[in-house]
Amino acid sequence: MSQGVSKRSEDYSLWYNELVKKADLAENSAVRGCMVIKPYGYAIWEKMQQVLDKKFKDTDHVNAYFPLFIPKSFLSKEASHIEGFAKECAVVTHYRLKNNEDNTAVIVDPDAKLDEELIVRPTSETVIWSTYKNWIQSYRDLPLLVNQWANVVRWEMRTRLFLRTTEFLWQEGHTAHATREEAVVETKQMLDIYADFAEDFMALPVVKGVKTENERFAGAVDTYCIEALMQDGKALQAGTSHFLGQNFAKAFDVKFAGQDGKLDFVWGTSWGVSTRLMGALIMAHSDDEGLVLPPKLAPIQVVIVPIYKNQEQLDAINEKANAIKKALQDKGVSVKYDNRDTQKPGWKFAEYELKGVPVRLAMGQRDLDNGTVEVARRDTKEKQTQSLDGIVDYVVTLLDDIQTNIYQKALAYKNSHTTSVDNFDQFKAVLENEGGFIAAHWDGTNETEDKIKELTKATIRCIPLDAKEEAGVCVFTGKPSTKRVLFAKAY
Amino acid sequence: MSQGVSKRSEDYSLWYNELVKKADLAENSAVRGCMVIKPYGYAIWEKMQQVLDKKFKDTDHVNAYFPLFIPKSFLSKEASHIEGFAKECAVVTHYRLKNNEDNTAVIVDPDAKLDEELIVRPTSETVIWSTYKNWIQSYRDLPLLVNQWANVVRWEMRTRLFLRTTEFLWQEGHTAHATREEAVVETKQMLDIYADFAEDFMALPVVKGVKTENERFAGAVDTYCIEALMQDGKALQAGTSHFLGQNFAKAFDVKFAGQDGKLDFVWGTSWGVSTRLMGALIMAHSDDEGLVLPPKLAPIQVVIVPIYKNQEQLDAINEKANAIKKALQDKGVSVKYDNRDTQKPGWKFAEYELKGVPVRLAMGQRDLDNGTVEVARRDTKEKQTQSLDGIVDYVVTLLDDIQTNIYQKALAYKNSHTTSVDNFDQFKAVLENEGGFIAAHWDGTNETEDKIKELTKATIRCIPLDAKEEAGVCVFTGKPSTKRVLFAKAY
Repeated sequence: MSQGVSKRSEDYSLWYNELVKKADLAENSAVRGCMVIKPYGYAIWEKMQQVLDKKFKDTDHVNAYFPLFIPKSFLSKEASHIEGFAKECAVVTHYRLKNNEDNTAVIVDPDAKLDEELIVRPTSETVIWSTYKNWIQSYRDLPLLVNQWANVVRWEMRTRLFLRTTEFLWQEGHTAHATREEAVVETKQMLDIYADFAEDFMALPVVKGVKTENERFAGAVDTYCIEALMQDGKALQAGTSHFLGQNFAKAFDVKFAGQDGKLDFVWGTSWGVSTRLMGALIMAHSDDEGLVLPPKLAPIQVVIVPIYKNQEQLDAINEKANAIKKALQDKGVSVKYDNRDTQKPGWKFAEYELKGVPVRLAMGQRDLDNGTVEVARRDTKEKQTQSLDGIVDYVVTLLDDIQTNIYQKALAYKNSHTTSVDNFDQFKAVLENEGGFIAAHWDGTNETEDKIKELTKATIRCIPLDAKEEAGVCVFTGKPSTKRVLFAKAY
Repeated sequence: MSQGVSKRSEDYSLWYNELVKKADLAENSAVRGCMVIKPYGYAIWEKMQQVLDKKFKDTDHVNAYFPLFIPKSFLSKEASHIEGFAKECAVVTHYRLKNNEDNTAVIVDPDAKLDEELIVRPTSETVIWSTYKNWIQSYRDLPLLVNQWANVVRWEMRTRLFLRTTEFLWQEGHTAHATREEAVVETKQMLDIYADFAEDFMALPVVKGVKTENERFAGAVDTYCIEALMQDGKALQAGTSHFLGQNFAKAFDVKFAGQDGKLDFVWGTSWGVSTRLMGALIMAHSDDEGLVLPPKLAPIQVVIVPIYKNQEQLDAINEKANAIKKALQDKGVSVKYDNRDTQKPGWKFAEYELKGVPVRLAMGQRDLDNGTVEVARRDTKEKQTQSLDGIVDYVVTLLDDIQTNIYQKALAYKNSHTTSVDNFDQFKAVLENEGGFIAAHWDGTNETEDKIKELTKATIRCIPLDAKEEAGVCVFTGKPSTKRVLFAKAY
């Protein structure tokens, strides 16, 4: 294609990297592993944020903001958090620079060393639970339903734009409850919100499940997740919701007096999605011509391109196009009319295909003569000529159709790439040839999971919440099992 | 008062600190100088963000996101930026922790030292202009109008919630232009946007002006600002907009080819407001009973409190109150109906006064009998009984009246605390006794400004954009001057 992205089929990984850059979504920065999210990419993220933020508020959550820095000692307070959480963190040790002797550069002032080092938050459970200790005294203070939108830093050795970056943007919800039951309900509610968001807005079918012990968040009792399938057959964890039990309450001594006056530790949850969703969105739907964006998250839903030979034609097209633009905007559709004379129509067509604009309207002299417009949809690349009469309703309906079609296509892919297997040879063959999710019996031990990962690189993505009870034997050890779990290679 | 804030007149500083905490706006965190912005405070900040973000987008700006970390060497690239910008920064020197020998705590891994230290951004000119170098080749790429919402860190030695914190939230706009003229127009446009926001939404009258060389942003050619007056007579800089000339373009080698093909350096601006605006909002309007919020930024604009002796009364009030709530919400008013039975009406009255809710409706048995409701406005504390007929329109109009009244009150304060003086004895006397802005002639030298600051702690807040040309003599040196500048003690 003109803007030059590699083919998916030839090198999926290269295709992804090029697409992210050429579609102006993000790029690597001068700081190793940190990305710059470019305006077009950020506009998609803002749309995601708006939808999720509304869903959080509709379920009585409020936003707040907690510090970027965490005292090093906090990370040691919750035993499994310290044990299990990755140690690759950015560490602040000094608080001042100074000019060098000839004033040509700045150096770190050795006299400005911190007594206790600060960690740039990799996640905020510790700093938030240390705060909750002061916010919670009695059952009247519960539930506490707080979310924050923030940046976090995890010092990743191998980074990929959106999928794994040293700094990323996310939201992290942290809630506190009087009972175990209420906290579990909250954990599952947030998982449902993530799943609905993925399916309804990202057009991304997901499997809801619970993680095995191996893959559980450090400090959680249970980690729930949504898992999606990318077009190369690899799975991507798109969101997690953790039931924390009383672990962090105990670590930070957060107790409440019940209605009976008795003191007990608070029950907690945490849940988050990140700019990683951008990676999932891109990989799930896009093609060799560029991005394919579901209309509900597309910053530009409709682009109008004029095709003209002279100013007189352009003037006539401008009038029609601006009227269509206005009428669509009145229906809540975001429209761009691109009548720049610095680029040719062919260049613009390729550009908006690359950027995944769901609907393109093109209008030339013949359309002016016939009262028509050419309508092209990005998902199927079908084009047809439509009468200007009723064009607004046609486009509004078409946007809905595209949203549905993108979802259905991804769902068909997921369904055709979810394979039940009953022995390990079959397991390896499917993983090798088709990829995707493999539904298989597992004996429930970490050892077997580790061994399978070692041999095949596949991990248990989740134990699906809707997994049927059925008698079977572990695909690897032959030991008894009562339900199938989903294996896959994963991002 | 019941919730117990100190009196403004007795200790303004203590009053402010207590108010911020007791009204649930923010609190100090476990990390020195960093604050936790609590949900009620964050809700006000979100309202500010929404209004400003819309104003930025309406003037063709787009949002993006740049890295948190800046390589140390970047700070040395712009000569006056390195020379003038404060060196109190958080410095990241290591990228990994590890468990100590007995696994009881984490320590910094000495083997994970960075080759080049990273600075947590105190502002992003350097990292953004290093990015713009790749984004800008020709005049077609200009103007580049980008904003980001982000956290920044400046290692402040003396911190105060919202006014001066080590980490704070802000937006920073960074634009690039083909001509000096266009960049100057942008700089002034953003200043106007800030001033309009302060006056129309925060109900805060401001003076628009330009900074003297002493107070200019390090790396700017001109720093424009809006300055507001707090109730203790001290000034607060509420926003700045910098004309950067070609300084950062030269430092980071950002050139563009003009229509004639000639290469030239790009012209830049940067502009920002921060959570410091929260401090201004609180200090400008609030009183000894607590916050006074302008309705346009109040998270809760109307609270309804029932006064009842038994369940039957409450049921009847619930019905009326919920109907009013619904009708007000339909007009876009945010309403809370507080019929919790855990607190008495008197406690609730004090609580919502403390939190600055602009309008309180109270309803008891007598109101039920008479078809009335008691309406109390927070700004003047006036109460009156109103018929339920037409109550919605009455409240909507009242909210507008309150917004206007709060602004007019602050404007009257500013006008009565802006004094023209013509000799230094008068200067000192006004500063000592009334405070506020002092309009005085100045000889235009840094030396005189420094000397006046040393003697009085007053600085030149700005040279007002609307300062009249008039012949005069410097209030300190007697040298000739052509216009008055504004002095004040400042936050």
